[in-house]
Amino acid sequence: MANSRFEYVKQYERMDRLLPETYIVIRIDGKGFHKFTKKHEFEKPNDLRCLSLMNAAARVVMSEFTDIVLAYGDSDEYSFVWSKSTELYERRENKLVSHVCSLFTSAFVFNWPQYFEIPLLSLPSFDGRAVLYPNLSVLRDYLNWRQVDCHINNLYNTTFWALIQKGGLTNTKAEEYLKGTISSQKHEILFSQFHINYNNEREIYKKGSIWVREPEDVSAPSKNQKYSTKQKRKMGLRLLHVSIIDNEFWNSRPYLTILLN
Amino acid sequence: MANSRFEYVKQYERMDRLLPETYIVIRIDGKGFHKFTKKHEFEKPNDLRCLSLMNAAARVVMSEFTDIVLAYGDSDEYSFVWSKSTELYERRENKLVSHVCSLFTSAFVFNWPQYFEIPLLSLPSFDGRAVLYPNLSVLRDYLNWRQVDCHINNLYNTTFWALIQKGGLTNTKAEEYLKGTISSQKHEILFSQFHINYNNEREIYKKGSIWVREPEDVSAPSKNQKYSTKQKRKMGLRLLHVSIIDNEFWNSRPYLTILLN
Amino acid sequence: MANSRFEYVKQYERMDRLLPETYIVIRIDGKGFHKFTKKHEFEKPNDLRCLSLMNAAARVVMSEFTDIVLAYGDSDEYSFVWSKSTELYERRENKLVSHVCSLFTSAFVFNWPQYFEIPLLSLPSFDGRAVLYPNLSVLRDYLNWRQVDCHINNLYNTTFWALIQKGGLTNTKAEEYLKGTISSQKHEILFSQFHINYNNEREIYKKGSIWVREPEDVSAPSKNQKYSTKQKRKMGLRLLHVSIIDNEFWNSRPYLTILLN
Amino acid sequence: MANSRFEYVKQYERMDRLLPETYIVIRIDGKGFHKFTKKHEFEKPNDLRCLSLMNAAARVVMSEFTDIVLAYGDSDEYSFVWSKSTELYERRENKLVSHVCSLFTSAFVFNWPQYFEIPLLSLPSFDGRAVLYPNLSVLRDYLNWRQVDCHINNLYNTTFWALIQKGGLTNTKAEEYLKGTISSQKHEILFSQFHINYNNEREIYKKGSIWVREPEDVSAPSKNQKYSTKQKRKMGLRLLHVSIIDNEFWNSRPYLTILLN
Repeated sequence: MANSRFEYVKQYERMDRLLPETYIVIRIDGKGFHKFTKKHEFEKPNDLRCLSLMNAAARVVMSEFTDIVLAYGDSDEYSFVWSKSTELYERRENKLVSHVCSLFTSAFVFNWPQYFEIPLLSLPSFDGRAVLYPNLSVLRDYLNWRQVDCHINNLYNTTFWALIQKGGLTNTKAEEYLKGTISSQKHEILFSQFHINYNNEREIYKKGSIWVREPEDVSAPSKNQKYSTKQKRKMGLRLLHVSIIDNEFWNSRPYLTILLN
Repeated sequence: MANSRFEYVKQYERMDRLLPETYIVIRIDGKGFHKFTKKHEFEKPNDLRCLSLMNAAARVVMSEFTDIVLAYGDSDEYSFVWSKSTELYERRENKLVSHVCSLFTSAFVFNWPQYFEIPLLSLPSFDGRAVLYPNLSVLRDYLNWRQVDCHINNLYNTTFWALIQKGGLTNTKAEEYLKGTISSQKHEILFSQFHINYNNEREIYKKGSIWVREPEDVSAPSKNQKYSTKQKRKMGLRLLHVSIIDNEFWNSRPYLTILLN
Repeated sequence: MANSRFEYVKQYERMDRLLPETYIVIRIDGKGFHKFTKKHEFEKPNDLRCLSLMNAAARVVMSEFTDIVLAYGDSDEYSFVWSKSTELYERRENKLVSHVCSLFTSAFVFNWPQYFEIPLLSLPSFDGRAVLYPNLSVLRDYLNWRQVDCHINNLYNTTFWALIQKGGLTNTKAEEYLKGTISSQKHEILFSQFHINYNNEREIYKKGSIWVREPEDVSAPSKNQKYSTKQKRKMGLRLLHVSIIDNEFWNSRPYLTILLN
Repeated sequence: MANSRFEYVKQYERMDRLLPETYIVIRIDGKGFHKFTKKHEFEKPNDLRCLSLMNAAARVVMSEFTDIVLAYGDSDEYSFVWSKSTELYERRENKLVSHVCSLFTSAFVFNWPQYFEIPLLSLPSFDGRAVLYPNLSVLRDYLNWRQVDCHINNLYNTTFWALIQKGGLTNTKAEEYLKGTISSQKHEILFSQFHINYNNEREIYKKGSIWVREPEDVSAPSKNQKYSTKQKRKMGLRLLHVSIIDNEFWNSRPYLTILLN
């Protein structure tokens, strides 16, 4: 409404439109979560309450932005993958990143009491970034990267905390013990020393969490077809803990590729 | 920790470092607050509870980021002004904007029950943007712009809601009535029809809110001096509802200019 | 070599890397060519000497940068299309645009005497820009856009100058005469008034010029294959004046798609 | 003129407006000049013909763009410093950088025969970049950086080539000989072995070249005054080989600071 002689300062704003027809990934990360998890006495190596809360917050984000097709979360991070044709906020980077990050935070704080008995003792917060991927192949590699990361970290953490919680080692000793070990050696430590078969660990820990938008009728429209806006609105959201790396994930869900275009 | 063949996707991230030695302003805005205020039955034209909550959330942000020197808030928006020499997050735009926006949101949701009896019925969220201002003169014009905007909107809203609440007009009628009126005419309507002297309205409504960082000893260091980190940490935060346009604001607070450099 | 206390100013340089795996198009345009063509008495509507010189300069650019796969030129502009995987200058936008523009200019000035008897009376110059296209479909539409532009302009100019040179109209009268006419009407004017069959005009005028990189053995490698660096270096350059819009152009040159990847 | 269904591709262009009210520096650098100087048998350590040609080309650029206030050149590079209020090409980075680079190249090639007897045997070209400096202090440090760089390189090169040309050393031997030497040692080598007093070397080699725009009446307007466009157009260009680091340079030319604003 206001129109003053100071309004020229708006010219200093930069138009930060993201390149059209490329996949936008917005990844958010917990800030200072090491301290935050200590303060709230999170269970180690994984706190199922927090992962569930993260998933609930991600669900809110996906419900709000129907142009987000899928999301991948692990530990204190979540990646939201947008349809490459989205024109939300004219694809303005600042707006997209900050709004996703804000809404996720809002849901995280609001829903905390549903997942934790302990009240919030300090304020959780997240930062975000946008990255562009120009084709499906590199987009899939992005998701693969995050899931491999989840796996490597979880195997390490599972072994690390077994050594401490069940083996009686100090943090420093456990760290030294694991230095330079490879995957198979960690599996072996878990099994021989603690009778833990890593493969039997919960899928949510090993694979992370994947939210996908899912049509009521999963029989996909033919390749050239697009889902109508009406169809999109009716779609549900499904939470998965499976391999996103396997072709099977994509082949069995042709609607994802359609939605991403 | 993880180092996989997929890691090349990191190369798609853009280095979004903001130009050094320029003032960074991060402004956040409520998303869909028109609907949000209706749902939570906000008082009109101003809801003091919400303004107080906004100020409380802004205080949290300023406490967290000591390189923010001052902040200006009005309605559902808040602008945070950073020292031009800040190197936080290497001045990465995405990180700065999203983290400020997230922490503000976190504080807003967390502190809601302290200000409202009604529980949150929907999730509030904000978006943010960064704008760079290369010198103090244009930075001041930015703040002037926001404060003039606050004034113009508040005068309009005060008159608009008086016509409705006290004058019995419908929204549409009130809008028509005010169409094309200038400032003095709105003052006149308020005074002659509703015995409201606009000048006696609360300063927080007319001027908005200003948080400033304030030294314990307000006698400023000499012009070339800088505050030490220790001094900075000890500084308090003060909330003001005054003209930021008048030179008086800046002349009486020489430490602000020092902190901004 | 130098390392001084002033070197910190390098930090003000921005890293302007263009998004990987997207097609880079660098388009250069003559600056002030309206005046330049008048001063050097260019033939109207087309000056074959200048088009040939433009093509020669573009050839120099393509010879220098083997990652440019094809180029399209018309009037005083030229577009250079890069392989989407090029890593030249780390894909830094400023360097790519300015170097292409500089080398083109260098070749244009140096080769001028081979194409014009009249010496250079003022300095020609060009500006440039980079645009990213994330897939082949939109890249083709970019090239289609330039070729349609060439066609529309050439039909207009051919008719305009016929009205002046053969019809004796002034510039203003010719402009008025053509105002609002559609394609078929311009064809009709040319044919009925000046016995010019537009279809018989030179292809270089109607279609513009296309440089393509061409393998010695045009039997393309199989779809997954790439050309080796050695093969690339041996490739020739061919100048075409054909439709780039027709699928035929791309279907008959499968090596272009391979080179672009 | 043309308006086709392909025109949507223009949306892929990015608006690359440079931040207002900051000093734009455009620096161009010779590409592959090591090879180029060899081929054209440049004199070592400095070829006065080339430096003069560089200066002539820079003069053309400054004549064309009246918003360039001063320029600093050395070896095969030149930096052009713009008034911080310039709005040329809406401050679009691509256009500014590429046009300056192109015009410089054009002038370099065109004027070559005036400075060299040997004809051009290969095409010279340059790349360019834009850097923003938000205040006069850091802008001066930028220029200081380039001049210190010039000095350090020239002292090294002068000694290096004396060892070869007068001392009979091979390139490799000269390089080894100078490894780790500091300034005073190079002065000493020059003086004791070759009777060269470095201080007596030509100023253009030691200081580089500075073009400044200069008012007819050098008595500057009072501090708040600006030069009128008419006055600006009448200004001359002066070539200097002096210290740009000394305050004297700026103090004795108050009009430069006015022009830069």
